[in-house]
Amino acid sequence: MIPRMATPASKTAAGSVGTVETQYVDLPKPLDLDCGRSLHPIRIAYETYGTLSPARDNVILVCHALSGDAHAAGFSKTPPPESTRDGFAAEDRDGTSRRGLGWWDGMIGPGKAFDTERFFVVSTNLLGGCRGTTGPSSTNPATGRPYGPDFPVITVADMVRTERAFLNELGVTRLAAVAGGSLGGMQALEWAILYPDQVDAIVVIASTYALQPQGVAWNAIARNAITADPDWQGGHYYATGRAPNAGMGVARMVGHMTYLSAKSLGDKFGRRLQFADDLSYTLTDPEFEIENYLRHQADLFVRRFDANTYLYTSRALTYFDIARQYGNGTLMDALRPVCARTLLIAFSSDWLYPPSGSEELATALRALGKDVTLQIIEAPYGHDCFLLEEARQTPMIRSFLARE
Amino acid sequence: MIPRMATPASKTAAGSVGTVETQYVDLPKPLDLDCGRSLHPIRIAYETYGTLSPARDNVILVCHALSGDAHAAGFSKTPPPESTRDGFAAEDRDGTSRRGLGWWDGMIGPGKAFDTERFFVVSTNLLGGCRGTTGPSSTNPATGRPYGPDFPVITVADMVRTERAFLNELGVTRLAAVAGGSLGGMQALEWAILYPDQVDAIVVIASTYALQPQGVAWNAIARNAITADPDWQGGHYYATGRAPNAGMGVARMVGHMTYLSAKSLGDKFGRRLQFADDLSYTLTDPEFEIENYLRHQADLFVRRFDANTYLYTSRALTYFDIARQYGNGTLMDALRPVCARTLLIAFSSDWLYPPSGSEELATALRALGKDVTLQIIEAPYGHDCFLLEEARQTPMIRSFLARE
Repeated sequence: MIPRMATPASKTAAGSVGTVETQYVDLPKPLDLDCGRSLHPIRIAYETYGTLSPARDNVILVCHALSGDAHAAGFSKTPPPESTRDGFAAEDRDGTSRRGLGWWDGMIGPGKAFDTERFFVVSTNLLGGCRGTTGPSSTNPATGRPYGPDFPVITVADMVRTERAFLNELGVTRLAAVAGGSLGGMQALEWAILYPDQVDAIVVIASTYALQPQGVAWNAIARNAITADPDWQGGHYYATGRAPNAGMGVARMVGHMTYLSAKSLGDKFGRRLQFADDLSYTLTDPEFEIENYLRHQADLFVRRFDANTYLYTSRALTYFDIARQYGNGTLMDALRPVCARTLLIAFSSDWLYPPSGSEELATALRALGKDVTLQIIEAPYGHDCFLLEEARQTPMIRSFLARE
Repeated sequence: MIPRMATPASKTAAGSVGTVETQYVDLPKPLDLDCGRSLHPIRIAYETYGTLSPARDNVILVCHALSGDAHAAGFSKTPPPESTRDGFAAEDRDGTSRRGLGWWDGMIGPGKAFDTERFFVVSTNLLGGCRGTTGPSSTNPATGRPYGPDFPVITVADMVRTERAFLNELGVTRLAAVAGGSLGGMQALEWAILYPDQVDAIVVIASTYALQPQGVAWNAIARNAITADPDWQGGHYYATGRAPNAGMGVARMVGHMTYLSAKSLGDKFGRRLQFADDLSYTLTDPEFEIENYLRHQADLFVRRFDANTYLYTSRALTYFDIARQYGNGTLMDALRPVCARTLLIAFSSDWLYPPSGSEELATALRALGKDVTLQIIEAPYGHDCFLLEEARQTPMIRSFLARE
């Protein structure tokens, strides 16, 4: 069931950006947030791949999803404690471990979808993160202790403003593209609305203009699993020797299930039992392979991810709703300022971010006379297709980026 | 959001079986279980509606689902602490409370689908239950304390053998029909295989011959939410002053979501917020109406249901797999002994028990030359249709039962 771990050395193949290292920069000024509070200091963890052109006009910002980090490509000299890719993709796609490899390594590199021979690709850990960027586990300068639940509530727009302020530190004023899947795609959309004159193109994959109600509910259940865990302790669990690992594990299981389709579960696990047909073991043993798999994924995740970051980030992506934020409830009004060329990619079996969301975006953008391309990929593996279907996305993205 | 509670007095309308009372009977002999253990004593909570014919040939056994109990119809003199119907159906269908009404009251009564003018309808609380029938919260005679996790692992077949033993106590040897939805439908199938010469007909609604992998996984996650709660205490939480309410609440939220469809969530809640567009409140407030609704449902459930019963029952329905149990993996071989006429009803939007499961059953039964009727109802509300779509099921069931 649990695949063997390959040695990292075998992983820096041709087409790779090679060995990389996460870097850090501190923003010079406080950031004003949607909630009315101001945050300072803010440290950003980031990685870059490729070479910045003299005109600084070849920058692509890559935005990660709920559980990602800045390590998007290449092999990390300072690998995170566990793979940062979602387990299903990370461990099972080709039967080998991707430990130490960036979460979007298949898409970023020489000759890949985001071609580092041409583009300077930048990836940051999101505001509120737990992988190097300031978040609820960072020290609150007012108390000298971790923020915990005193960290300000953040929005996707706050994440994007943070990315904007961070790029200023790199001397980058204009982006050739912003790209991401899921929450990453929400950031790309938000960029095109907040900074319409600074983004040439956006690539929005397996994403939406607002999470549909099933997604709202599943995210709420995952957050409730964490906050209901007595070890969450109202969010002040740091340095208590107890953390809401049980609740986080359940949250991860719930999240993981929403990334898969009925078909992917059926193909991969079916109803296979762990221990033949033995009814005599105890009530808490995992009976089915899928249960064992989910527990394994939960264990991995709990070790590498902070529960409060999960809460803040899940809340932000659930709240994201550009029609409400910018259009008084009307999607077209919200999208009116967009100047960026837009590529939307959706997957037929993605029930968490169904293609209908991308279709509505495409319809609204077209009605406004914007330059929009919609690609719906027929693929059976649910939301996870965003990480699994790299080969089919690559030519779409390359040809989209090749247009000027 | 939370509907007002109507007064019970208004609820015994025409077509009702009227006021009922749950009764109890103790089985005279130990019951041999699939796990190899034997259980004694066993008390059964049950209700009956209608009149037993002198020939004792008009008995319909009604089997409840995961969270039900013996109170299937009429108004209870001794109502359970909370409505026994799933909240969505119980509280929201017509805007009034159904507190005190049986969980299948719309289907059982004079002139209803299971017509008590003609049939003697019997309903029991399942083995392992927490609503009057012996289960993990019952006293273990070996210790004088509740069984907890020392209660034997049970199967759907064990539930059916218990029902068989219970009916002996009523002097009933033959059933005109066994009927149920979801886990109740599994019992009906199991009856037709275990006791082919004692069942004239089965009515299997929104059910399957084996839960498909998504259902396996969601049930496993719900069980993990309970057992991961430190207050579960390995199952020995009775009389400790602490119970795994947090985990049970999450389990209920997960379960509840699997009973609904994307459309039912969208129609009922959409993305409506609780508090307009206010970002200043704390991280743990429910932001969306759906989140508030799920928390309310979780609270109701935790008050009326035992966590260990949930674990044992969820495990039994997940393990149920008649092809594995009786056919060496082949559904047709498992169904070969069936003599009962079979009515299968499925709902187009039920993704937890998809129509394909009923179609496979119908195909196998037809190939064996059995008398089978399959009805797929186009309805948008997911697995909950089994409780919501009573009006459309009624003529199907009445005409099926009218045939001899």
